Amino acid sequence: MKQENGVLVKEVENVKKTQRGVDMKQEHATQIQNVVKAVKAKNIQNVYFVACGGSMASLSLGEYFISKESDVPSFVYTSNEFIHRNPKLLGKDSLVILRSHSGTTPETVEAASFAAKKGALTVAISMETESPLCQASEHIVHYNYKDGSDAIDGEAGMFYTLIFEILNVLSPNEKYSRIVNQLSKLGGLIEKNTELFSEAANEFGKKYKRESIIYTMASGAYIHHAYSFTSCLLMEMLWIHSNAIHSGEYFHGPFEITDFDVPFLVIKGKGASRPLDERALDFVNKFSEKVEIVDVEMFNYDGIDDDLREYFGTALTSFVLRLYADGLSEHTGHPLSVRRYMWKMEY
Amino acid sequence: MKQENGVLVKEVENVKKTQRGVDMKQEHATQIQNVVKAVKAKNIQNVYFVACGGSMASLSLGEYFISKESDVPSFVYTSNEFIHRNPKLLGKDSLVILRSHSGTTPETVEAASFAAKKGALTVAISMETESPLCQASEHIVHYNYKDGSDAIDGEAGMFYTLIFEILNVLSPNEKYSRIVNQLSKLGGLIEKNTELFSEAANEFGKKYKRESIIYTMASGAYIHHAYSFTSCLLMEMLWIHSNAIHSGEYFHGPFEITDFDVPFLVIKGKGASRPLDERALDFVNKFSEKVEIVDVEMFNYDGIDDDLREYFGTALTSFVLRLYADGLSEHTGHPLSVRRYMWKMEY
Repeated sequence: MKQENGVLVKEVENVKKTQRGVDMKQEHATQIQNVVKAVKAKNIQNVYFVACGGSMASLSLGEYFISKESDVPSFVYTSNEFIHRNPKLLGKDSLVILRSHSGTTPETVEAASFAAKKGALTVAISMETESPLCQASEHIVHYNYKDGSDAIDGEAGMFYTLIFEILNVLSPNEKYSRIVNQLSKLGGLIEKNTELFSEAANEFGKKYKRESIIYTMASGAYIHHAYSFTSCLLMEMLWIHSNAIHSGEYFHGPFEITDFDVPFLVIKGKGASRPLDERALDFVNKFSEKVEIVDVEMFNYDGIDDDLREYFGTALTSFVLRLYADGLSEHTGHPLSVRRYMWKMEY
Repeated sequence: MKQENGVLVKEVENVKKTQRGVDMKQEHATQIQNVVKAVKAKNIQNVYFVACGGSMASLSLGEYFISKESDVPSFVYTSNEFIHRNPKLLGKDSLVILRSHSGTTPETVEAASFAAKKGALTVAISMETESPLCQASEHIVHYNYKDGSDAIDGEAGMFYTLIFEILNVLSPNEKYSRIVNQLSKLGGLIEKNTELFSEAANEFGKKYKRESIIYTMASGAYIHHAYSFTSCLLMEMLWIHSNAIHSGEYFHGPFEITDFDVPFLVIKGKGASRPLDERALDFVNKFSEKVEIVDVEMFNYDGIDDDLREYFGTALTSFVLRLYADGLSEHTGHPLSVRRYMWKMEY
């Protein structure tokens, strides 16, 4: 009887969990549809992406695709620069998309209030709907964070759904609906690519564990992944010196630092700017013996239409790069969670 | 008689030189007025600044002031990214300003042709009017380079005249005419500030000559000076590792790299974003024993109206920073003209 009860309790819990999942999916869909309705209602003339650090880098992917595929001007700002610069174009025809993992980043919360006061349409992306950022913004797009739920409700899934739904309003194209539909495959692709790159990432950690500086290099949408990896993973979490070099800029100054013992992690992107990465790789491979390549063309894209794979490349890159940071962490014995300043003091 | 002849020859030469200066000034004024006329005639809807490396960083100052003071969207691209991204907004209502010192940078020449094909109004800034970049562009803005002529005809003088003449069309304001008028004082101010900062810059070189990495930090318009100093002076000319950190982004990752022995060169800007630099300085000064500050408020601004000094701060910063590179060069014995790859091979 007791065991029967236990089974029953578990079943009820499972039903409840599934129901919460269904409710969450429904809520997420509603949130995005509300943004889409508001964008349609306002005749948006420009889009600002505003956040700090890794969140800013993630938002920058939105700016990349909007500038490439629509004629609506879009801009990226780190939150405090946004407030102090006070761009004159910002106003009632602006859409301002802000992002903070916890929703507590003070500069980003202030940026949301600042934009709202200017009459802009504000959208907060966060995992905490009760956070100050969400309270300061007109619309909320929530994402689940590592709670075992489907990736479509996670940070990449929710952000990509949002961006391509908005792009479909700004510059309608049937492919955006296909992207949103195929995002259901994201979870499976993250798993497959994790498996695909785990060994290489571990070898990277083993080989580069004694390095005090590792440059990153990329172009196009991928320069933002390089920026994140440099700022948040190498400098912040691993205390390794770095600089994210644009593959096109490499030849206009930075390449003179190249030498046989200077390490570079190069993201060979998929899409329009890949030739820039190839040119930089041709050079750096000649003069450095320490070049690691993450080739986005080599990712697993099972079930994704050919013409949509470049969009999924940018969505998958951060998950693959994370493995390379894990590799360094494993072999340096420096956990990615260690900080010397963050969370320990006021600043 | 011979001596008399010599004096006469010299006098004739001086008259000719003065005449060439007058002719050049006249030509420069005509070039800029032609751009202004063309901008007025075209009803420009957006402005692109396109170049590579240090030239891109210089152009970025234009984007800073246009975004801050006009409601015309403006963008900065490194030349190859511009071509491969192919921004959808680029077209016949676009103004595209390109820059290359020699006018031969292949990516920038190609970007000019690319923009012209899209119907954009193209303006090339260069010291070589016969260069491929100038041939590929509709308008030319020439500048003199270290030929002993007045700074008003040099790179900063010509670029600032151009930008504020254009801003006066996009968003008319009497102060822009005052800026252009007071640019005649630029040469004197460069001299005064060179004198003012020479000793500190030399001491910087003495103190930091053994460092293999020096971070730079700045915000607002000055982040572009930090980028130039990092890419072109530290990495390219001195082979010192570096990364230009935005003072607002510092707290969102990079600050964890700070330690007692990690050097930072911080530009404490003048104008809207100075509080960001002050906050970063408060922190970095606590945890690093190697912080050098270039305070733009401390520059000499003799004869410049109070409300215009922030514009002159950005114009003078590169001349002051150059002294800090000279200081490092002097004490490392590494001439700024040495390269290992540039000019020596195809790439």
